[in-house]
Amino acid sequence: MSKGFLVVISSPSGGGKTTLREEILKCEKDICYSVSYTTRLPRREEVPGKDYYFVSREKFLQLVKENRFIEWAEVHGHFYGTPRDFIEENIQKGKILLLDIDVQGARKIKECNLPSVFIFLIPPSWKELERRLLKRSTESEKEIKKRLKRAKEELSFYQDYDYLVVNRLIEEAIQDIRCIIRAEKCRRARKEKWIKQLISESS
Amino acid sequence: MSKGFLVVISSPSGGGKTTLREEILKCEKDICYSVSYTTRLPRREEVPGKDYYFVSREKFLQLVKENRFIEWAEVHGHFYGTPRDFIEENIQKGKILLLDIDVQGARKIKECNLPSVFIFLIPPSWKELERRLLKRSTESEKEIKKRLKRAKEELSFYQDYDYLVVNRLIEEAIQDIRCIIRAEKCRRARKEKWIKQLISESS
Repeated sequence: MSKGFLVVISSPSGGGKTTLREEILKCEKDICYSVSYTTRLPRREEVPGKDYYFVSREKFLQLVKENRFIEWAEVHGHFYGTPRDFIEENIQKGKILLLDIDVQGARKIKECNLPSVFIFLIPPSWKELERRLLKRSTESEKEIKKRLKRAKEELSFYQDYDYLVVNRLIEEAIQDIRCIIRAEKCRRARKEKWIKQLISESS
Repeated sequence: MSKGFLVVISSPSGGGKTTLREEILKCEKDICYSVSYTTRLPRREEVPGKDYYFVSREKFLQLVKENRFIEWAEVHGHFYGTPRDFIEENIQKGKILLLDIDVQGARKIKECNLPSVFIFLIPPSWKELERRLLKRSTESEKEIKKRLKRAKEELSFYQDYDYLVVNRLIEEAIQDIRCIIRAEKCRRARKEKWIKQLISESS
């Protein structure tokens, strides 16, 4: 077994992260998803405890005070936080943890120096991003404009990421990310136990 | 398209490199193989110009003098060399070039600072390596002992490599390497053109 690490996926809104995350978790049984806390309301299709832990602002701020988040941030007026215990315990166990997080959050994760891989999922074109946001009819026009403005800002964070995956066809993007994870398991630092074992056998 | 790069695969003798290389080239049409020059005699199944360019010592040394190798080395008493023009032209064209090379050669490639990915293919255990070498009955016992001694030395080069792939089941090792190549195409530095295009569209 290789050592545990985080797979941090960020994407401008409408990038298609949710579908992609679900597909990856379905295919890869040794990967678990780190469920974040948020103070925003659930969308129609979201399941509490699976997509997010939905909590009140008071509860959230209490958890902040207790240092229970590895990172937290305010995005579009709502709080989002990544639970510390879950992450640390699972890395210790050698697990691969999928984190679906915005660019601010990813930057904070980066500062934690946990073993991590950073993937930026980008739309194939700006026109396509607009189209996808409009298609997702759960939000008002004002909200969509806000998201587009934010998407533009988010793109400028790309240098924080190890990999850029273009989400043209979702199946291709899923394959890219599955391959990135498989490749990362083969990184020298994560396989050192193997080679040391082999070297000791040869003596 | 992402930028061109080298995929350098090394392995202690009997690691199963040839089968693996052929399978990868069969599956991935955008990867080409860099055929090396050698002064050793062809093995039964080897095809000149496909597996190696088989040349005399005189011819080889002349090519060395003309600086036509990006690296060359003597291994088991034979010369092996990697042709410079082929490599440089294909990287320029954005191609992915597979190089199947020993640890000394890989180290020299590393010093060239060409865009490269280094993969070390290792047997699952020392016992298994011995078994595989014995099975390949084309060589004398003396030759096998020499190869085992050399394999032991080669293992100590593992820190030159970005990835360690354990060749337990050949199909799994092939998948690992295909994933490594696919992941490497998604590296930020190789996809920068994409994101810059996207950023310019958003303005």
